[in-house]
This record gives sequence, C-alpha cells and structure tokens, in this order.
Amino acid sequence: MNKYQLFEQIKQKQSFLCIGLDTDIKKIPETLLATDDPVFEFNKQIINKTAEFAVAYKPNTAFYEVYGAKGWQSLERTIQYIHNNHPDILVIADAKRGDIGNTSANYANAFFKTLKADAITVAPYMGKDSVEPFLGFEDKWVILLALTSNAGSKDFQYSDISGQLLYEKVLQTATTWADAEKMMFVVGATHPEELGKIRKMLPDYFFLVPGVGAQGGDLQAVADHGLNDECGLLVNSSRGIIYASNSPADFAIRAGEKAQELQQQMSKILKEKGII
Amino acid sequence: MNKYQLFEQIKQKQSFLCIGLDTDIKKIPETLLATDDPVFEFNKQIINKTAEFAVAYKPNTAFYEVYGAKGWQSLERTIQYIHNNHPDILVIADAKRGDIGNTSANYANAFFKTLKADAITVAPYMGKDSVEPFLGFEDKWVILLALTSNAGSKDFQYSDISGQLLYEKVLQTATTWADAEKMMFVVGATHPEELGKIRKMLPDYFFLVPGVGAQGGDLQAVADHGLNDECGLLVNSSRGIIYASNSPADFAIRAGEKAQELQQQMSKILKEKGII
Repeated sequence: MNKYQLFEQIKQKQSFLCIGLDTDIKKIPETLLATDDPVFEFNKQIINKTAEFAVAYKPNTAFYEVYGAKGWQSLERTIQYIHNNHPDILVIADAKRGDIGNTSANYANAFFKTLKADAITVAPYMGKDSVEPFLGFEDKWVILLALTSNAGSKDFQYSDISGQLLYEKVLQTATTWADAEKMMFVVGATHPEELGKIRKMLPDYFFLVPGVGAQGGDLQAVADHGLNDECGLLVNSSRGIIYASNSPADFAIRAGEKAQELQQQMSKILKEKGII
Repeated sequence: MNKYQLFEQIKQKQSFLCIGLDTDIKKIPETLLATDDPVFEFNKQIINKTAEFAVAYKPNTAFYEVYGAKGWQSLERTIQYIHNNHPDILVIADAKRGDIGNTSANYANAFFKTLKADAITVAPYMGKDSVEPFLGFEDKWVILLALTSNAGSKDFQYSDISGQLLYEKVLQTATTWADAEKMMFVVGATHPEELGKIRKMLPDYFFLVPGVGAQGGDLQAVADHGLNDECGLLVNSSRGIIYASNSPADFAIRAGEKAQELQQQMSKILKEKGII
C-alpha cells in the first residue's frame, strides 16, 4: 500500500485508527480455547467487528512467538485473513527487528514475502545497513522506532548529543535513508509536546503513535500536535479495544463498539482540522 | 547455565567458540533439500561435527523466520537437539528483541520457556523496562547490544553524549540493571581497540564478539583486548564454519575442521594468557 492509498482509506473511513492485535491466550474468552487455533479465532472475530473503523492492524510478534511454531502459524493466518477480507487495510508487523545487513535482508523477506505484512517496525540502534534491506520492497513500509511510549524511552532516547537528542538524531539521519513514501516513525502518545516538535521537523512523514489508552496517552493531544494535511498519523490502541470484554457472548461486539468510539472521535477531529 | 558452568566448559574444551547457525537454504547441499526439514538436517550434521570444539551455538532467528511457521519449527528442533545431545552447550537465540515491558515479557517467555534458549540478544534502544523482563529467569542470560560489528554501528552508537559515547552509556547504564551473572554484551570484533577500553570499564562481564571471519575481525586482536581471568569472551563465527564446503560428502566434516582450527587457536591463546 502506498501513501496515497493509505490517505484515501483514512478519508473514506474517517479514521486513523490502528488496532493492535496483541492477542494473549490468558485474556481471551475461555470458550475459544476449545478451537483448533484460539488466537486466530479470536483475531478473526475481532477483525470482523472492527475492520470498518480501522485503517491498520498491528499484530505484535511477541504475542505469537510465545506459542512457538503454532503461534507463528496463527500470525500467518491472521495476516492472510485481513488481506483476503479487507485488502484496503494496512498490516503492520510490530516486530522491532534490526540486525546486520545480511540478517536484516532475511527479516525483510520473512515479513514482507513470507508473512506478507505491509509494514514492519524496525529498531534503529544498528544504523543504516540494518534498516536498508527493508526499504527495497514496493509499497512496503519501514516504521522506525524514534521516541517510544514506555518509561525506558528516557534511558537513551533523550541523550543530548551536542544539543540534539538521540531520538532527533535518529529522525534526522533516517530521513536521509528514505522519504515519506517508504518510511514512518514510531512516536509514543505519552510525549505529545515532543510530537509537535517532531511534526515541525518532519512535515510529511506518517507517525505510528502507540500508547493511547492503556498506556495513558490522549487522542486529542496527539491529534493537536501530530496531524498534517494528509493526516500523517496512525494512532494505535490494543488492549483498550481487544479486551473491552472477555465474555464469549459479546467480546467482539464490545471491541467493535470501542473501535467505533475512537473512530467517531477521529472523524470529528479530522473534520475540525479540515482534513476531510 | 550460570557463569561458573560456562567457564568450566571453556576450560574443559579449551575453547571460547560460539558457532552461528545462520542456516540459509540456498547455501546448503542440495541433497538435503529432499529431507523433511532441510534446515534442521543441516544443523544436526553441523552440530554433530562441531560440538566438541564449541561452547555455544547461536541460531539467528531471521534465518528461521524467513520460512515462517516451518522455520520456527526448525529452530525449535535445533535447540532441542543441542540440549538433548550436548546439555553443557550454551544456546543463544540471536533475536535482537526489545519492546515495552508487557511485550518483552512475552518475548522472554517465547525464548526462555517455549524455545528453551539459554540466552537472547536484546536491543537497548527502548531502555530499562524493555530489558528487565528478560532478567527474571534463573540461569538465563541477556546479551545486550552495545557496539555492533556492522558499518551502521557508526550512525548512532558513537554519538557523543557529553564526552561519553552512546555505546558506553548503554554499557554503563545496563550494568546498573544486571550483574555479570545475568548479562553479557555484544561487542563487535571489528572494533578491537574499543574492546580493550570496554574490558577496562567492565572487568567481569562476558562479551559476545561477532564479526570474526566473514566480517573481517581478527581473533588474536580480540583476545589481546578482550580476555579476562575467566576468559570473558564468546567469539562467534558463522559463515566461515558452516559454509566451509557445500558438498554433500564433506560439508559437516569441513565445518568440524574449521571449528577445530579456531578451537586450537583459542586453546593456544588461553594457555599463553594463563587462563587454563
């Protein structure tokens, strides 16, 4: 999916919602455990009720790898299900990979060819040759970690390098590797002021913003600081949507309602800002 | 495996060799492709011929994920095979994971409980709460990226933070998270002078040193700068050993010979330095 298509979808759905599929078998309705692939079954039902409100899904690989090969199969099925039923939706593998070039090339094939994700989150610590192998795929995206939503973001990302913070150096350097048609950045919702500063630095890039909901980030503040003319934001919510209920009777319906609530707030914001 | 047991193994084998199982189906003997699980079959034969010369194996997850769920299964089988046949050998999952705490906890379970690796490489960018969940497992190790062996290590790892380089800040900060019984650091063999500086900073920690062989690092220089009284080094070679030959007749034998060559150099060095 390219940037134009992503913005078209945002306008059509009046939403910039990304739903994190951090599916934990301990938190899903017990009745699903009797199925052959509980994780996929849960995701399928969540997707069925939320797809009209979301422009992206973001399965986090940790929640699949914890079940070994079987979990990887649930991940493959989930991505295939999204593509088959909702080909307009962006699938982000939240994998935070990154290694020497030869290895990153294998990760790129793993996520873009084998798993058929549209985008992957990548860690910047190992520099240019660890990121480049992900950039050679048409209509596929690298989403590079810049300023993350967790407490540990303070440990290194704010390090002052001659007046520039490390996350700013990552942003500035990475923009020399790829333009806004190939790269996005992770900017946590727990740092709304920095989001505004980053938007000024990078007017054209999309930002993937985790941390709204369970981690305490505020949607309005994120929008106020982060939107650009083409929206430029994908705001992620995971636990707040997918675990809205754990009752077998209504978990997917409640997830749909939670997604719709966020979509309606986003629609209002997009209209107020004159983006749609 | 704890540090004492690791050093005992090093003394017994007169080796600090780690073999990287970066198994690429395009580089293995064609005859193996007819087997049910060519990647595992290759690894098994390599392990059979090299185990007496190595103290650690390091499968790199990228080379398994590229085959999806099937690759993950090859990885599970490989680790199980090492544990069953060589219970004294350290298994390092070279995965370079790291995410917010809730997610890293799932990665820790994936690698330590599901896959049963003894150690995992972790990326430091997201800070303390991204690393901590990996530290709560008995006799399991975090191997944190500090100074990597690739060209991109220059992009951020050498950033000057008030006179301290980023990789030094990572080292110094991480030693407040875990002692030398729980944590090791990745220090690339392509930076031997820095290795000496880092050894002075951290006299007790083990360093995993990739980059010897295909990436150009030199074993003697690494040993001169990096050894401590308990060895303190795991030097990795991947391609130089496992792809020494691609003939079905002798690929494993040649890998064994290459591993033995390195082991003999290491034995000589360990004796010269009075470590054994």
